[in-house]
Order: sequence, then structure tokens, then C-alpha cells
Amino acid sequence: MTQTALSEIGEFGLIDRLTKGFTTVNQSTKLGVGDDCAIMSYGDKVDIVITTDLLVEGIHFDLMYCPLKHLGYKAVMVNLSDIYAMNGTPKQITVSIAVSAKFSVEALDQLYEGISLACKKHSVDLIGGDTSSSITGMTISITAIGEVEKDMAVKRSGAKPNDLICISGDLGGAYMGLQILEREKHVFTKTGSQSPKLQGYDYVLEKQLKPEARKDIIERLTKYNIKPTSMIDISDGLSSELLHICRRSSVGCKVYSDKIPVNKNTEKVATEFNIDPLTAALNGGEDYELLFTVDINDFHKISMVSDVCIIGNITTSNEGENLITKQGEKIKIIAQGWNGFSH
Amino acid sequence: MTQTALSEIGEFGLIDRLTKGFTTVNQSTKLGVGDDCAIMSYGDKVDIVITTDLLVEGIHFDLMYCPLKHLGYKAVMVNLSDIYAMNGTPKQITVSIAVSAKFSVEALDQLYEGISLACKKHSVDLIGGDTSSSITGMTISITAIGEVEKDMAVKRSGAKPNDLICISGDLGGAYMGLQILEREKHVFTKTGSQSPKLQGYDYVLEKQLKPEARKDIIERLTKYNIKPTSMIDISDGLSSELLHICRRSSVGCKVYSDKIPVNKNTEKVATEFNIDPLTAALNGGEDYELLFTVDINDFHKISMVSDVCIIGNITTSNEGENLITKQGEKIKIIAQGWNGFSH
Repeated sequence: MTQTALSEIGEFGLIDRLTKGFTTVNQSTKLGVGDDCAIMSYGDKVDIVITTDLLVEGIHFDLMYCPLKHLGYKAVMVNLSDIYAMNGTPKQITVSIAVSAKFSVEALDQLYEGISLACKKHSVDLIGGDTSSSITGMTISITAIGEVEKDMAVKRSGAKPNDLICISGDLGGAYMGLQILEREKHVFTKTGSQSPKLQGYDYVLEKQLKPEARKDIIERLTKYNIKPTSMIDISDGLSSELLHICRRSSVGCKVYSDKIPVNKNTEKVATEFNIDPLTAALNGGEDYELLFTVDINDFHKISMVSDVCIIGNITTSNEGENLITKQGEKIKIIAQGWNGFSH
Repeated sequence: MTQTALSEIGEFGLIDRLTKGFTTVNQSTKLGVGDDCAIMSYGDKVDIVITTDLLVEGIHFDLMYCPLKHLGYKAVMVNLSDIYAMNGTPKQITVSIAVSAKFSVEALDQLYEGISLACKKHSVDLIGGDTSSSITGMTISITAIGEVEKDMAVKRSGAKPNDLICISGDLGGAYMGLQILEREKHVFTKTGSQSPKLQGYDYVLEKQLKPEARKDIIERLTKYNIKPTSMIDISDGLSSELLHICRRSSVGCKVYSDKIPVNKNTEKVATEFNIDPLTAALNGGEDYELLFTVDINDFHKISMVSDVCIIGNITTSNEGENLITKQGEKIKIIAQGWNGFSH
């Protein structure tokens, strides 16, 4: 029998392959696999969105520099971000954990403090979960449930030519924060130095360790009566997410490199590491900002929404997915996002 | 700082401690942590029930004798069983997996074949999930969503004195199946023998490897217009589940040992292993049968439901939880269910 290594087909290839044969049979299922959330309908007033994420120690987080309280907070945020990316409001979560004997009850108290803080901040109820032992390390599985006004859910698939491409906040910070932490970990393992140099890096460290799901952006879009034509949260890097939108919507895109927002603090750290800030923004991931498209007629309205930038526009699919440099050069966008299976 | 080992407080102690500080704030949350499922309400017609389970290789399953297709099937069944235990009908699942490089794409195809089979059998839609690599082994996290007619959800907490205690099917089979598999694994690791002796053990092996969530029982209860006063599925063994019902309902119970149904095949294997079949039934677990209570006035109706036994009755809480032996002896029921953290 053929044995194909997981690394050969990558995460998205694997998901496609494993879920290919599944069809949906229930009326209450409005959207299945393939977006930030699935959509269900169990009543007349609202639709329900649901998302789930698995975080594995040594793959998604490193407890050497990620405090458990922060980890709990981030694990929830990652899921809430997917709910907001559907234009939804998160309401409930379930949290399952598998932990090895190296963790004490007190350590898990810390984890749940972070989970609790995230829940309170976003008015989300913890309604269930599971606990188990594990042979090694910690695995966290969170499912988030949210509601969205009937037919107001925003998918990845609704972008159309001439739509404006928008993003919230700024990009690349979380990635640069990770570089700082990895550097100090390296110093520690080599020299045993107990005093990591973290001063002055607050901005990027917070982006990495304590990301905020953009509830505020969804509230502002509602306030200005803007329904994006498509939306996704930026977890794997801007390039990867742009390609998801383009493929699901059967369109192309034109994004201007000088419009991609990068914070000055991120730029500074990138320079220190000899990394092009644009590379961090395009491929870094974990920023949990929102990438969305709006109809060109909403230009005036979207311009009034604070902390949102227009970075380009949607084109027809035959024009492809392109990054336009300052010099006017056209570069094909490719996803250098994260392949979890290359570990 | 105090460091308390997880094994000191056990799974249920840990869940209580970690979730103690959480309160619910959303109207759509009708029931949070502490039952087979949480209950949500997002419309006028139906309530939604949700449950989640985490299965860890080396803790919950052993791939040495559990084929991946069976594992996928069972992983889904375990969750559907929780939905039925709320008197609900499962509609959707999400499946997340973390797998190490030792698994090939083809191996995961097998796993998903089992998942697909279970979904088809119960008309359930796979609507999402997550995939990740892992450092060692496989972890499966499944969340199931179901619907239940408004206010028809059955909790663990509704049992009252004089209610009849009922169970579906028979007990102890899954545990005895596990003993067979463990024995043959032991033989294999000691002698390298490639021909495990599994002939004649079909009944208990199927109970262990391919359990069936009791959709049929829920359908029959509906048909006979019986709404149980409380219900739970038997995953950790009858004793443990009886105590859950009694504690949540603030009642006691009286269960007659000679009424507890044990299949002849299970009895035979138990005798072979020098295990009291009653012990397997009380503490074995993984049978995924339903334990429920019905009002004494439903006695006539419940007697007509096939594959259901009445094993005793609910008492006041000050009478305690008791097993009555054939000889009329009263034994206090204690949970010898599974402590995952003792691993």
C-alpha cells in the first residue's frame, strides 16, 4: 500500500482530501468545511457560527516563554477571532485539555485564569469541555459558538472585482515578537542566562503573547452599516489569507505593498533582525487582524472606520493575485504560510 | 508555591476546580458545564445541545489493536451518545486531529472512513475541524451538536424518589472486549505471535471496538411518549454514572444486582478471566448504553420499550446509593470508574 507522508500534501491539502467525500444532509447545516466557521440555522432570527482550534505544545506554543495565563487567553482569542471573521458575535466556548503529569493543578489554574479573562472581556460563556491525561505535554482544543443576524454571516467566498481590500490594525508584529522570544530562549539554553532582554519590545511581545480578537472592528462595521463582501482572520499571514479569499471567491487581487500597515515598533525589530518588515507582514501570521473586502460603493463609509486600511482591490481571476511594489513592479503572491506538518 | 499533582484530585475534581469561577452571562446559554451536554437556545422551536470529547493515543486508545477505521467510528459514537443522553438528535460534528509524522495520509483516510460511516449511519454532517502535527501519537477532538425539541432536553438532575431506574442493552461487554485485546497484545509483545486468539469473542470485541450510540432507544422513548426525568450515557461504568445522577438530582438509589443485564457472551469471557461479571458491569465502562430514570407512572409504558431493563428505583438522598445483592444485602455504591490522571 502506498504511504504518503503528511508533509507531502500539507495541512490544506490534507483537509481537502479527508473531507472530500463528506456531504451534508441536515437542513440546519448552512455551510460546512472550508471557511473560518461553519454556519448553522436552528431558528428564524439568527444563524449560528461555530469554529474549533487545536493547539499543541511544541507545535503551536512553547511553555518556555509563553506563560500559561497568556496561553489560555490566546487560545480563546484565536477562536473568537474566527467568529468575528464571520461577522458574528461569540457567545459560548468549550475547552478540552490533555495534560501530562508534569503539570500541577496550580499550573492549570493559571491557564484557566487566562481563559476566564478572555471570556469576561468578550462576554463569552464557558459551557463545557473535557479533560484528559496525555503521554507528553499539553494539547488544548477549543470550540467557539457565536451568533449572527440571519443572512448577515460573511464568508470567504463573496469578493467580486473592484471590491476594496481592507485590513484592520497592523501586521507582522506577532511574528517579530516570536523572533525576540526565540532569540532569548536560544540565549538561555546556550548560556543559562536568566535575564532575557525583553525591554523595549513591549509592542511586538504583546502582539505575540496577548493578541486581541477584533470585536471592535465588527462593531464599527455594524455601526456604519457596512457588510463586507468577504472576510477572513489573519492567522497564517496576509499572503495565505488573500489566496484563500481569491480562491473561494474565484477572483484575483491587486495589493499595494506601501499600503500594508506595519507598526513602527515592528519595523524597528524587523530591522534589528535583518528581516524585511513587509515579509513579516505577508508571511508572519498570528496577527489575528481581519482581512475583508467591501463593495466599492462603500468607499466613503469604510474610510470613516478607524484602524482600517485599504490595501488594494479585487480583480478578475485571470489577472491573478498580485503584489504591486513601490516601484510599480508586479509580484505574484504565493503563500509561504506555515506548514504544520513540516515539523 | 504549592504544587498539587493532578492525580490527587482526579478528573471530576479538576473539572470542578477549573470551572468553579465561571458564570454564564448570555441568554442563549441555558445549561453550562456539568452534564452530558451543554444546552443553548438560539430560537423558539428547538434547543441546541453540544458536547465535546478528547481522545488521546496511549490513554484512550491503543493503535496496536484498534484499527483506525474503528477508532474513527468510535470517536464519533462516543460524542453522539452524549447527544442522545440529553434526549437530543445529533446533527453536526467538528473533528480536529493532531498527528505525528508516523501517520501516513492513507492511515488518516482510514480514520475518516470510520468517521464518515458513523456520520452516515446517524445522519450527521461533518462541518469543520482542525488538523495539526503533534510531537508524539494522535489526539482526536470531536464536538457534536444536536437539537432537541424546546424544553425536552433531559438533564442528569431531574430524578426524584420512586422514579424507576432503567438502562438500555447490557453492560460489561466493552470492558471484557478490552481484556481480550490486552491479553493478545501481551502475548504478541512477549512471543511475537502474529495470530491473536480472537475467535468466539465477537460479541465483546464489537462492544469494545465498534460501540453503537443508542439512537434507537431515544426514538422508542419518543414513540411511547416517555420523557425520562434524568439521563446519562454509560461511559465510565454504571456505578460512576449512578452517582452522577444521584448527586446532580440530590437523591439516593436502590439498584438490584440481579436486574443488571449482562450478556451471556460477556459472562462467559468474565468467567474465563476470573472476573465477576457484575464488577465488569458496574465499573467497566465504555458500554455507551443509556442510564435513565422515568416517573413511576410511566411503568406500564417503559415495560413495552424493547431492550430496556428496570434495575431499581430512586430513593431519598438520606437513604444513600445502594446496591442490593441477591441475598438482600445492601452495599454502598462507590465509583471505581476510571481516573485518567492516574496514568
